[in-house]
Amino acid sequence: MSDRAPDLPQRRINVSLSDRSYDVVVGSGVLKGGGAFDALPRGERAVIVTNDIVGPLFGEMAERALRARFSRISTITIPDGEPNKNWQTLNRIFDGLIDAQCDRETTLVALGGGVVGDLTGFAAASYMRGVSYVQVPTTLLAQVDSSVGGKTAINHPAAKNMIGAFHQPSLVVADADTLRTLPERELICGLAEVIKYGAALDTAFLGWIDAHLTELLARDGDALTHAVVRSCEIKAEVVAADERESGHRELLNFGHTFAHAIELGTGYGTWLHGEAVGCGMLMAVEASRLLGLIDAQRADRISELIVRAGLPSRAPHLGIGRYLELMRLDKKARGGEVRLVLLTGPAGATVQRVDDQLVAAVVSKFQA
Amino acid sequence: MSDRAPDLPQRRINVSLSDRSYDVVVGSGVLKGGGAFDALPRGERAVIVTNDIVGPLFGEMAERALRARFSRISTITIPDGEPNKNWQTLNRIFDGLIDAQCDRETTLVALGGGVVGDLTGFAAASYMRGVSYVQVPTTLLAQVDSSVGGKTAINHPAAKNMIGAFHQPSLVVADADTLRTLPERELICGLAEVIKYGAALDTAFLGWIDAHLTELLARDGDALTHAVVRSCEIKAEVVAADERESGHRELLNFGHTFAHAIELGTGYGTWLHGEAVGCGMLMAVEASRLLGLIDAQRADRISELIVRAGLPSRAPHLGIGRYLELMRLDKKARGGEVRLVLLTGPAGATVQRVDDQLVAAVVSKFQA
Repeated sequence: MSDRAPDLPQRRINVSLSDRSYDVVVGSGVLKGGGAFDALPRGERAVIVTNDIVGPLFGEMAERALRARFSRISTITIPDGEPNKNWQTLNRIFDGLIDAQCDRETTLVALGGGVVGDLTGFAAASYMRGVSYVQVPTTLLAQVDSSVGGKTAINHPAAKNMIGAFHQPSLVVADADTLRTLPERELICGLAEVIKYGAALDTAFLGWIDAHLTELLARDGDALTHAVVRSCEIKAEVVAADERESGHRELLNFGHTFAHAIELGTGYGTWLHGEAVGCGMLMAVEASRLLGLIDAQRADRISELIVRAGLPSRAPHLGIGRYLELMRLDKKARGGEVRLVLLTGPAGATVQRVDDQLVAAVVSKFQA
Repeated sequence: MSDRAPDLPQRRINVSLSDRSYDVVVGSGVLKGGGAFDALPRGERAVIVTNDIVGPLFGEMAERALRARFSRISTITIPDGEPNKNWQTLNRIFDGLIDAQCDRETTLVALGGGVVGDLTGFAAASYMRGVSYVQVPTTLLAQVDSSVGGKTAINHPAAKNMIGAFHQPSLVVADADTLRTLPERELICGLAEVIKYGAALDTAFLGWIDAHLTELLARDGDALTHAVVRSCEIKAEVVAADERESGHRELLNFGHTFAHAIELGTGYGTWLHGEAVGCGMLMAVEASRLLGLIDAQRADRISELIVRAGLPSRAPHLGIGRYLELMRLDKKARGGEVRLVLLTGPAGATVQRVDDQLVAAVVSKFQA
């Protein structure tokens, strides 16, 4: 059945949230190796939600692994890409679940990148007021970030990730082998989130990324696995301390306030999320420097790494007024004032209200 | 300002759910009397969600009372009625919130009946992944049932209340004075849910309803207030024991499996929810009797009360197959088998799988 031993080296990271705790299983071949879903209780029914690119690549492998836990497995295929992260696609999932008479004990399985994961998670949060789900992320971005932590959402035409729920998965299975077929552009997007952890939360990890960027870009299995493991460890710790983002978890939004404005301002899907985060981090670094919160050395080191990773260093021209308008709709904003994750000192990060002049100065510098 | 003293007699029922606990404030004139929202923390912003019938009647009064707690209050008006409990209306709420740049600290206020409450609650559960909300129910049905307990939902074209969330309000304010203008048909709908509590969970209350039905139908203020208070007490106790309906809370669905089939089978809004519950309870009583779970005396007593309240005693003709198909989509169903809340012995209730023959026998007897 399998060309790999079932006792492959794998890492388990626990996200500790009392009765909502779960494991993130990371390793090369964990999906193929069998046993990936052993942590789940046996169930009658699982429904894989995937897209038309990932489904043909890994659908059969996932189904085979799920058979150890579920007696009936079916698949719902949704269209790929950020422009489809909306009500219409969500309703296609609901239609599929209702057509198949899925009950409250059904488990959904998100097989794909961040769009599939966010949509499937929100469908699981809302179908019959909540069923359980599993994340099987197949992009680097989803493995290091979006599949862990229970943030689910769809986009509103006027604001990204505006409608959603905090709904933790029962398990996350991140198989590094699925990254082999990932388009280059998507690999680089994932690196943006990896760099985010290092820049905002762990300077030792930042040093490691810096030293291993070449291997990461060359998809070295060990390097990618370490990047996923360390990113998930950091995220698990942050989420355990602040599940619903009332404080510390906001730091994971480093670069994201500018990023959401870029994504929305250019039309969902024009810039990939990770690309926008890369450029958004450059802008947030500049904001931190302008405010005197970090010195030029820290600013340059992080900025150079982002550029070396192949992420875009120029922001789209939307006009300062439009940037401000979009950034005021960010979920961190309060009373119409923009709040940004900023870097501080030699290793820290914080969230601060910033005035429009600062945003304008940063946008002017980066806007193409 | 007010023609009533602020120290009106009012009852507070606590729904005890650790950090999600909240009060249900019940009384005549509590909204007008001021102080209704004193239990809420002071906030910047509240958004009243109401419909075009309730808004003109009580919108100003609610806004005046909210001014003690919030400095900016705005209103979103949605269309009335069950056929509008859908994505389209939910999106109108989201559009309104985004247009007004509402942030995570905004409080939504549901002013209206069950449709407004269910929609607003789900909007609050999902907007920016969750903001707080308050229920101000203005129908008897919403005051005794739907505003308490945190069940929020919209309908799917193929199944009622299929998409939603458990999201508890921060406060419920039920003013019996708002029932004075309630259409007769809606008053009777509310009585269906009142009878539900007596029939399934509290025979002493059932006796009280029986003895005071005339006053209730005549809208006697004391009788209505007692009915609301006792219903909310029972519901608070059930919800505190089983918030997410994994067991005991299912008993509150007495009559609802048949009811949802009637509502959906005839088209949302043709039968009002309470009417369908009335008829559905008659059918569930009959199912309990056929299974030998209750004697004829209990069956007759409850059935006679439902009929005396003015609720419909004949079910619509949909055909047995269609009833079964619709009932299998009920959220209590498991593995395609219908589960019903049934009455047992002199005072009990339970949830049981029932076979298609039993459902067929009941439907045959009631179908017009």
